[in-house]
Amino acid sequence: MRVMGIDCGSEYTGFGVVEETADRKLVCHITGAIKLKSGTAMAAKLQKIFADLTAIIAEHQPEIVAIEDVFYAVNAKTALKLGQVRGVAMLAASASGLQVAEYSPLSIKSAVVGYGRAEKHQVQQMVMRLLNLTVAPEPMDASDALAIAICHIHTSATNNRYQAASR
Amino acid sequence: MRVMGIDCGSEYTGFGVVEETADRKLVCHITGAIKLKSGTAMAAKLQKIFADLTAIIAEHQPEIVAIEDVFYAVNAKTALKLGQVRGVAMLAASASGLQVAEYSPLSIKSAVVGYGRAEKHQVQQMVMRLLNLTVAPEPMDASDALAIAICHIHTSATNNRYQAASR
Repeated sequence: MRVMGIDCGSEYTGFGVVEETADRKLVCHITGAIKLKSGTAMAAKLQKIFADLTAIIAEHQPEIVAIEDVFYAVNAKTALKLGQVRGVAMLAASASGLQVAEYSPLSIKSAVVGYGRAEKHQVQQMVMRLLNLTVAPEPMDASDALAIAICHIHTSATNNRYQAASR
Repeated sequence: MRVMGIDCGSEYTGFGVVEETADRKLVCHITGAIKLKSGTAMAAKLQKIFADLTAIIAEHQPEIVAIEDVFYAVNAKTALKLGQVRGVAMLAASASGLQVAEYSPLSIKSAVVGYGRAEKHQVQQMVMRLLNLTVAPEPMDASDALAIAICHIHTSATNNRYQAASR
């Protein structure tokens, strides 16, 4: 299974493509973040995010896209900005024929670290260990995107085990 | 000048294309609203909005897109949803090579009715009068989209007069 995680933000939009191999190892295919230049018009920023994500999907061929489900925000203005980026990220997935899976921050931390209230750097450490990375993915948004992808893989594995057990 | 106004909402996304003719009359080319079926996945809804807006732009060839600038919202969750729709609407404009102009609700009401605290139905009445419509555009989101387009035309006219006077 190959999953693309996207971490939407108003400054950086992180991405990461993770594959679970047949022998259940996790491999990182690509990770990084799209930086939005301040001073650029919002519509142009959104166009860049859409174009970059679409290109990454085309090149790395994930089977599904996973993103963070956000229910809270500092304020409505921040939420609106974040929503704009999130909408365009979801569209990039959908326009490429991919489903979008959404996970709460709690689910992501639980699935990756085993503890829903884990700190950001703990998540990053665990992402490095699980993907066998020697260098921390930077910026943090890139690491967060990998965590979201890993969350989807772990959650799917758990769901498959449940389904197998209930048969 | 031909302007497309878009009124983003979580249920309906209104649109309207208005032209100011050479003899300064306002003509409505098309108006309506994209209804989002409840129960449909958000990514699929966003894909429909993007496809429909892109098709309307291609058919009616506006020179610019005007949308409402939102700074407030009932809560962060609503703002996030609205942001997703707004991001995709801005992308539809940008991907079609059009600039996006943003206007506050106050500016829109002032430009259309001459009073920033006008009621929704007063805005609708004025939209009907200015565009010489015999039937009220429904839903209200369609009428609001026309108001946004008219706001851009009036604001541009005012700016042009200022610039001419200051030469």
